[in-house]
Amino acid sequence: MKISRITSALAGVLMLLTSCGGKETCNATCDNTQAVIDNIMTRTSIRQFTDQPIGADTLETILKAGMAAPTAVNKQPWAFVTITERAQLDTLNAYHPYARLATATTAIVVCGDMNLALEGPAQEYWIQDCSAASENILLATHAFGLGAVWCGVYPDSARVADVSRVLGLPSTIIPLNIITMGHPDVTPEPKDKWMPEKVHSQKW
Amino acid sequence: MKISRITSALAGVLMLLTSCGGKETCNATCDNTQAVIDNIMTRTSIRQFTDQPIGADTLETILKAGMAAPTAVNKQPWAFVTITERAQLDTLNAYHPYARLATATTAIVVCGDMNLALEGPAQEYWIQDCSAASENILLATHAFGLGAVWCGVYPDSARVADVSRVLGLPSTIIPLNIITMGHPDVTPEPKDKWMPEKVHSQKW
Repeated sequence: MKISRITSALAGVLMLLTSCGGKETCNATCDNTQAVIDNIMTRTSIRQFTDQPIGADTLETILKAGMAAPTAVNKQPWAFVTITERAQLDTLNAYHPYARLATATTAIVVCGDMNLALEGPAQEYWIQDCSAASENILLATHAFGLGAVWCGVYPDSARVADVSRVLGLPSTIIPLNIITMGHPDVTPEPKDKWMPEKVHSQKW
Repeated sequence: MKISRITSALAGVLMLLTSCGGKETCNATCDNTQAVIDNIMTRTSIRQFTDQPIGADTLETILKAGMAAPTAVNKQPWAFVTITERAQLDTLNAYHPYARLATATTAIVVCGDMNLALEGPAQEYWIQDCSAASENILLATHAFGLGAVWCGVYPDSARVADVSRVLGLPSTIIPLNIITMGHPDVTPEPKDKWMPEKVHSQKW
């Protein structure tokens, strides 16, 4: 009886350790920690979509997630163009060979706003800031069971010019990428990109 | 009796809609969706830490999250230096005015590996790739109840030179940032950065 109780208690502790990965304190609950890690590890690029549109509330939450990213000196030097009209998606698709907008129902073009960016060489931090926002957008999209793919625009000068013209961007607004989105019509396996040899301890 | 059953059923549906934000399908469960969104929205920069170290398994999970980020043409052009030794953290701290390593127990220096990067002007995509990896690292860190702050290194040429020297980086390895980490000793409120006027519909 006593042994069974100890076994049962140990099993409980083991379960707790497993659900939490056995590590550190957790944000709110261990299940939440695992949900966040799983969402990061299972996200993969989706390039084919059903014709079901993305709800306006969901799109707003995804954009809020984008704007929650950290930025250098808290400049938040970004702007976003959301595209949901078929004609505009098709026009943009004609100018970007890999944007995969043929079946996408939504695109978010993440842009840098040079009026808000730092000055001098530090202006370039807009690229890092907008990339962090883009990753938040991809992760939030995946969390809703939606799919997305990050299609590079900047620093390809021809693509920057084409996207800027189609969207009517002012010269101070630079498109970083097109994030193509929709309800997935495919279920590709996420890549395993873990390479411990790329981690160096204390120094190179 | 019948009315009470209908009321109960409606309450159930309402609860489901609320837990899911009333939107789209969810990744695995609605609770998981909310956990991911909450983790993105509540993350904020932490610059002061207790002396409790970060467990090795947790640090590995955080690095795996970093390497799960998407990269242009799947080049994965990155390398990571983890620093946990007090002396090395202090040496690095002396060279970066904002790295806040005085109380940090861990730092991850996210680097671009030019041997793995694309060629020509597209080489610059390493900045976006390593920024996406950095954001994954910040989000995974927060999910474990840990704190972190992204301290910019590249493109500040003096900081790049200093960090490269301290870490003994080869000339093909460029440090993008120092991510300072540890158990938080402060609990700052996350900033509300949502600005709907930064979102443009269909075009500018």
